[in-house]
Amino acid sequence: MTLISPSRRLRRTPFSDGVEAAGVKGYTVYNRMLLPTVFRSVEEDYRHLKEAVQIWDVSCERQVELRGPDATRLMQMLTPRDLRKMQIGQCYYVPIVDETGGMLNDPVAVKLAGDRWWISIADSDLLLWVKGLAYGFRLDVLVDEPDVSPLAVQGPKSDDLMADIFGDAVRDIRFFRFGVFSFLGHDLVIARSGYSKQGGFEIYVESTEIGMPLWNALMEAGRKYDVYAGCPNLIERIEGGLLSYGNDMTDENTPHECGLGKFCNTHSAIGCVGRDALLRVAHEGPVRQIRAIEIAGPAVPGCDRVWQVRSGEQLVGRITSATWSPDFNTNVAIGMVRMTHWDAGTELNVELPDGSRRAALVHEKFWN
Amino acid sequence: MTLISPSRRLRRTPFSDGVEAAGVKGYTVYNRMLLPTVFRSVEEDYRHLKEAVQIWDVSCERQVELRGPDATRLMQMLTPRDLRKMQIGQCYYVPIVDETGGMLNDPVAVKLAGDRWWISIADSDLLLWVKGLAYGFRLDVLVDEPDVSPLAVQGPKSDDLMADIFGDAVRDIRFFRFGVFSFLGHDLVIARSGYSKQGGFEIYVESTEIGMPLWNALMEAGRKYDVYAGCPNLIERIEGGLLSYGNDMTDENTPHECGLGKFCNTHSAIGCVGRDALLRVAHEGPVRQIRAIEIAGPAVPGCDRVWQVRSGEQLVGRITSATWSPDFNTNVAIGMVRMTHWDAGTELNVELPDGSRRAALVHEKFWN
Repeated sequence: MTLISPSRRLRRTPFSDGVEAAGVKGYTVYNRMLLPTVFRSVEEDYRHLKEAVQIWDVSCERQVELRGPDATRLMQMLTPRDLRKMQIGQCYYVPIVDETGGMLNDPVAVKLAGDRWWISIADSDLLLWVKGLAYGFRLDVLVDEPDVSPLAVQGPKSDDLMADIFGDAVRDIRFFRFGVFSFLGHDLVIARSGYSKQGGFEIYVESTEIGMPLWNALMEAGRKYDVYAGCPNLIERIEGGLLSYGNDMTDENTPHECGLGKFCNTHSAIGCVGRDALLRVAHEGPVRQIRAIEIAGPAVPGCDRVWQVRSGEQLVGRITSATWSPDFNTNVAIGMVRMTHWDAGTELNVELPDGSRRAALVHEKFWN
Repeated sequence: MTLISPSRRLRRTPFSDGVEAAGVKGYTVYNRMLLPTVFRSVEEDYRHLKEAVQIWDVSCERQVELRGPDATRLMQMLTPRDLRKMQIGQCYYVPIVDETGGMLNDPVAVKLAGDRWWISIADSDLLLWVKGLAYGFRLDVLVDEPDVSPLAVQGPKSDDLMADIFGDAVRDIRFFRFGVFSFLGHDLVIARSGYSKQGGFEIYVESTEIGMPLWNALMEAGRKYDVYAGCPNLIERIEGGLLSYGNDMTDENTPHECGLGKFCNTHSAIGCVGRDALLRVAHEGPVRQIRAIEIAGPAVPGCDRVWQVRSGEQLVGRITSATWSPDFNTNVAIGMVRMTHWDAGTELNVELPDGSRRAALVHEKFWN
């Protein structure tokens, strides 16, 4: 790994002081904001995430706020998921597509009111696409990035820790629903969600000034649960099949290729700008798709570029995320494989950057 | 500085193998792509840039390509700079604004043909804004990101090195003009431009496969000029007053606040979406503006956040880039200062992250 040079452009967050005090050892950059990647070691963080509770600075999940009479119309223009039955208080994972059906982002949409939404974005300036559409269609809607920085509480002891701070009512929040809870006189949206399979919450921290007081309160109350600073964990997310925009998919991919067809209602998503382009693939299915792939041999190097996947010499796919899994004692990977070779049990081979080849196997499903 | 974690999302470039072989020591992330920040040391790189010639991997200056009957109409929608007299073969520095006049990017526009443009972008997904407008206005234009990666040759010996590879005709390229030159059978756009004040060129390398052959050819031919790998240099760019989008300006700023009024023809830029919003500020001038600021005392720390600027206790501005300048034997900085305190010679003070204050002085102009 190489050093990252600090600058204002790589934005600090309301929790950066806490992250640094906890001894952050690595960062990535996500939406031009610092996102921690490792505290003690990726493997120690992984073990701890599965056993205790962690506080994650995921401020980089910036919000795009839509507000006004056309907010819901605009929201539906963005996604092939049918939003008509979505209730206030719900969160939806929504593929966002352009007019060709290419993925522009895979955020979580939060319906705050009938005329007010947050889109909690992955790593692309979705704000600019949304503003461009709103302007081009002369919609009656405000679109901007509010001062909201998500803080995630993840791990099996999340409910206990959160109840200590926000009261037992927080335990009743259902998956991908949110409630509004008070902290130091501020109302905060808290959803049961997060980028791990270990359970937990995301607190949408409105206004920078309460960032560190909340961080400190969680750290203090969490001592008895062995709380520690954490971050999205590479091993755990691949085991769980959590996709990463920019890694496992780009604007070259349709939602269906990404295995997100279940979040598309292409026929009924009337108004979605990518609907027409997606109708055929929604009906017939894609010709390549995301798969869980096991790679044989010792721990693979960091997957910092696409690795070609072949059947014999024939190019049939690509790996985009990979790492060694201690719990499953193998290399776990996410890749996209052509229809002819995507069946579970298909034996393939992967070319690593040093030119060596490794045996690989298409898995039925992800590990967690 | 902390380590940066590798992933496919932080894209490698056609020149990454060369950058690594040259011993890159630090990166930033720019348009989700790796951009080197230091090779030997920031100060050694600075000295060498002013005396010799460097090869810079600036692939992160991604291109947004506009092609089709409405390409020029769309290009004018993006900027308050009047493009009507721009010739094929010219490059224009163009502030890009949204409908409120806020800066979305500060790229270089390259007019390839009457119906074909490249926009060589700073750090934001301008592609999404342009696509949104094209779709919303139903324009007859293709908008995408082509496989083009700029490689800069910068420093006083740039002309000699470039002539060795491309022939003496390259010396005749005028500032912010381009010509088309051949390398290994590929036609390449070469402009006299670059993000330094030391002179040089930017080669728009079309197609990844010739990236390393070109890098190696430049390194080989450049031995007699003491060529080395380099990158945009923090010290040199602040001395020269080269602004950085995301550091010195954001979408909260108008072009006029950024001192870019000279690149705006707001009255005649008919079709620019931000024109109406900018007319008044274009006429009356902004109330705060970019200034060169000298900060007293020993070398300041890395400027990784906004530093408040005061007159006594009154908040009058902010510093967004700062570093120690060996050649001028002082701290050089870029900041934005309110009209009441922006005159050259005004004495101010700057608050550093550790809470200490430093005397500061508004400069007449930048140092280089």
